[in-house]
Amino acid sequence: MSNIFEQNLDKNAANFVPMTPISLLRRTARAYPERTAIIHGELRRSWGEVWDRCRQLADALRKRGIGKGDTVAIMAPNIPAFVEAHFGVPMSGAVLNSLNIRLDAEAIAFILHHSEAKVLLTDREFSPVISEALGKLDHKPLIVDIDDALAASGELIGAVEYEALVAEGSTEFEDMWPANEWDAISLNYTSGTTGDPKGVVYHHRGAYMNALGNALEWDLPSFPVYLWTLPMFHCNGWCFPWTITAKAGVHVCLRKVEPVAVLSAIAEHKVSHLCGAPIVMSMMLQVPEEQRPHFDHPVSMMTAGASPPAAVIAGMDGLGVEVVHAYGLTEVYGPTVVCAWKPEWDELPLADRAALKARQGLQYAIQDDLMVADPDTLEPLAWDGESLGEIMMRGNAVMKGYLKNAPTTETSFAGGWFHTGDLAVTHPDGHIEIKDRSKDIIISGGENISSVEVESVLYAHPDIAAAAVVAKPDEKWGETPCAFVELVDGAAPSEADVIAYARKHLANFKAPRVVVFGDLPKTATGKIQKFVLRERARALD
Amino acid sequence: MSNIFEQNLDKNAANFVPMTPISLLRRTARAYPERTAIIHGELRRSWGEVWDRCRQLADALRKRGIGKGDTVAIMAPNIPAFVEAHFGVPMSGAVLNSLNIRLDAEAIAFILHHSEAKVLLTDREFSPVISEALGKLDHKPLIVDIDDALAASGELIGAVEYEALVAEGSTEFEDMWPANEWDAISLNYTSGTTGDPKGVVYHHRGAYMNALGNALEWDLPSFPVYLWTLPMFHCNGWCFPWTITAKAGVHVCLRKVEPVAVLSAIAEHKVSHLCGAPIVMSMMLQVPEEQRPHFDHPVSMMTAGASPPAAVIAGMDGLGVEVVHAYGLTEVYGPTVVCAWKPEWDELPLADRAALKARQGLQYAIQDDLMVADPDTLEPLAWDGESLGEIMMRGNAVMKGYLKNAPTTETSFAGGWFHTGDLAVTHPDGHIEIKDRSKDIIISGGENISSVEVESVLYAHPDIAAAAVVAKPDEKWGETPCAFVELVDGAAPSEADVIAYARKHLANFKAPRVVVFGDLPKTATGKIQKFVLRERARALD
Repeated sequence: MSNIFEQNLDKNAANFVPMTPISLLRRTARAYPERTAIIHGELRRSWGEVWDRCRQLADALRKRGIGKGDTVAIMAPNIPAFVEAHFGVPMSGAVLNSLNIRLDAEAIAFILHHSEAKVLLTDREFSPVISEALGKLDHKPLIVDIDDALAASGELIGAVEYEALVAEGSTEFEDMWPANEWDAISLNYTSGTTGDPKGVVYHHRGAYMNALGNALEWDLPSFPVYLWTLPMFHCNGWCFPWTITAKAGVHVCLRKVEPVAVLSAIAEHKVSHLCGAPIVMSMMLQVPEEQRPHFDHPVSMMTAGASPPAAVIAGMDGLGVEVVHAYGLTEVYGPTVVCAWKPEWDELPLADRAALKARQGLQYAIQDDLMVADPDTLEPLAWDGESLGEIMMRGNAVMKGYLKNAPTTETSFAGGWFHTGDLAVTHPDGHIEIKDRSKDIIISGGENISSVEVESVLYAHPDIAAAAVVAKPDEKWGETPCAFVELVDGAAPSEADVIAYARKHLANFKAPRVVVFGDLPKTATGKIQKFVLRERARALD
Repeated sequence: MSNIFEQNLDKNAANFVPMTPISLLRRTARAYPERTAIIHGELRRSWGEVWDRCRQLADALRKRGIGKGDTVAIMAPNIPAFVEAHFGVPMSGAVLNSLNIRLDAEAIAFILHHSEAKVLLTDREFSPVISEALGKLDHKPLIVDIDDALAASGELIGAVEYEALVAEGSTEFEDMWPANEWDAISLNYTSGTTGDPKGVVYHHRGAYMNALGNALEWDLPSFPVYLWTLPMFHCNGWCFPWTITAKAGVHVCLRKVEPVAVLSAIAEHKVSHLCGAPIVMSMMLQVPEEQRPHFDHPVSMMTAGASPPAAVIAGMDGLGVEVVHAYGLTEVYGPTVVCAWKPEWDELPLADRAALKARQGLQYAIQDDLMVADPDTLEPLAWDGESLGEIMMRGNAVMKGYLKNAPTTETSFAGGWFHTGDLAVTHPDGHIEIKDRSKDIIISGGENISSVEVESVLYAHPDIAAAAVVAKPDEKWGETPCAFVELVDGAAPSEADVIAYARKHLANFKAPRVVVFGDLPKTATGKIQKFVLRERARALD
């Protein structure tokens, strides 16, 4: 039975409009058409120009037969065409599939096949790997070369160049709004730790909400100057192509994350905000003082992927860069958890501040809920800083699901929560802190061992620069911890030394049984590739 | 036919959650339970307390039989209970109906009857007018007295006191989420242009979006200290009960807007943000220098209802208060248009800045679209600063419609746009500027007065043959109602008689300040030419 507030009060075109990031570009272009939107080397584009070019791109795609539900892939570093693709592609009705530029030909071929890409926009630099990937495909997409002036190498391998494609379209294009905010806007494949990558599908509603969520959580003022250190192919650049547009900021493009280039760009363009993994901060801090471009305006950097260590926070303090710690996954549009800072914490000593900032924190205001729970019963665990459970999220910044993968989609949403696969505790103040990826739990003789716990002990060893601990299959114990260690220059401890040190600081069963010295394999964002190490550990005997 | 992005990628409890401002309170209480949420005289309440109290209020209402689709009315100045009602009432499933405290008993009785209010929360100060209104009702709501410690007068007339009601509820209450974001959250009556007021119904989705929209447009940082100068009964305080909560700010309550009290509160609590009609600014500026409490921290004030005059902008500059000009209506959740300022305009001389700031501007980023158009054809007019048309809006911060008034709802949404009734031009830079109101609304001290309502009272006077009421410019109030009256033969009431008569049948602020006797100018078809009368009213001083 309907109540009086449900009678003759229905949705209509005036009071219910599908939420989409496209509307944010139109608003900014209307308000600030002459302001700079994009900086790339010598290139400057205004919001008026970007708005025109995105409509042209959409119209050109339509004229080429692309429409709703088609996939348009892109292989590019952080260049202007990538910003434009975040609007122009969905305006055409198509879904933007950003490829990780570190992938090999096989993985790219897998994705292009799985996503059924009809078009591939590809930066000249990547023509070798793309050519190789295309060789593996029966049905090849339309290849559009992006002939970026700052690309150092590569060839044009496509049917048309990006600028020529844009020129095929008209600025009169208007049919750009999704009929439904639940329509897909983008597709991001997760680096598969287990077998084939999974295609995470984003919807317009979620992209819109997390675009605004970033601005709200970061207290982002109007006109931020944003440096593109975070790859746009990671969770759509954590939604920042849309966020920075919403706040009429400047997208400062950067093909490659080199520390001096980063610092120079900050100084030259008065960059106010940037994002990146802690490794990017470490790189910035390693630039010798005399080579370091100086700036004295306030800068804020959002980091995720790993907790920023105390030394890094202190170093960034010294540079005048505030560090904001966030957490997320591809499945939740990038960061949707943030270490919500309390002003009174500013007064604490560095070690305490670092310990607080190492915590992942609380869900974004736009993300409905977050809990650390028993993954089977979904019972929330005590806020005691000790009870280890799986991080679960729900809200409007959670993916539609995995493309063409109903079983995994269902499993990941079991019980009406998204299961992150990350293990954490909840502190008494409600902030969560990750203790391990659930896949990285080592189970030895029935006991759970957190690899992170073992690693943090190893990191404290004066001779050790970096450490990663994984499970090594063991006939007797099931698994045992195996440590891979990078030493500081000149140090040469023995395996026995390291094990003895670990036993001094850990329960015996948690100490590594084997220690392997050498460089650790890392991803582009500095994440240690544990799956490679697990392979190595398996092969050790 | 569905595409691959529509297969097995449906909404579920993990990835689709109804948007509601309630979630903003939970998030803030979780992140900052110990921070001050509310200041009222000597009273301080933390976010943890407010979260508890709102759940108690919701639970208490439920236990009293209130649930989804029921109306809970409130008659109160800007006090803590009013902030809490913005959360506790919708948590119970009910719809919050805020009454304008300046209304007379007749109008209140009409609204309580029309809204079918089951509960009325009423501040002690208003017991006389509420008692009178209740006398006119056949079915009386449950009366809950709010015995605010700072109320100067009045009696307890209800069945239970607010604190006792809250105490009936439990903090364990959890069933507080709307099943659907389209569910009604509040009901605000506009002074109708045609006799009876219309009940504007807000939905959770819109309240949520405009709560965030305010924060985004105003570049609201975390922890704003917000002074409640704007009545919470106006469009739910322009959604700021929800906005300030979202940003974990402080609600500084204020029963009465007296300029010295406003300035003192700003100084004492380091208020960072406040809202109000231009008259509030004028009042602040009229405080003599030697009585003026001083402050030197940055303050920003959002104003709407009339353009801030150059002298006021200059005066506020002198006080160190930035002025932000916004525009909206009850039907669009308060302000959803803002004079989006360009930094380069700061350099202009005062007169130019004032002329730019007098413009209403552009739609909020969260409001989909805005146009000045021909009201019949809906053709947008040229952006020439001259073509006069009606302001039309569409987006997610537009009401569900008018309660129990399908014909007017339909008319106001004709063609898929909300028709504001305000006439404006669009300047070449896309900013709109209001030139007139098509429906003869008079805005006096920030309150809308329907000229039609005043006229219908005058028509009822036995000596009056015809009456027309228009706005007369007024330095203090912006505008005041001015009546032009034709008398029946032989009648000769004085101006004071007519004014006294109007005051008996209308809220005081609606009664004409000036009455002019004589023949009314009419068109050939007998229509009164209001534009002629507006000219005359302007020339009266």
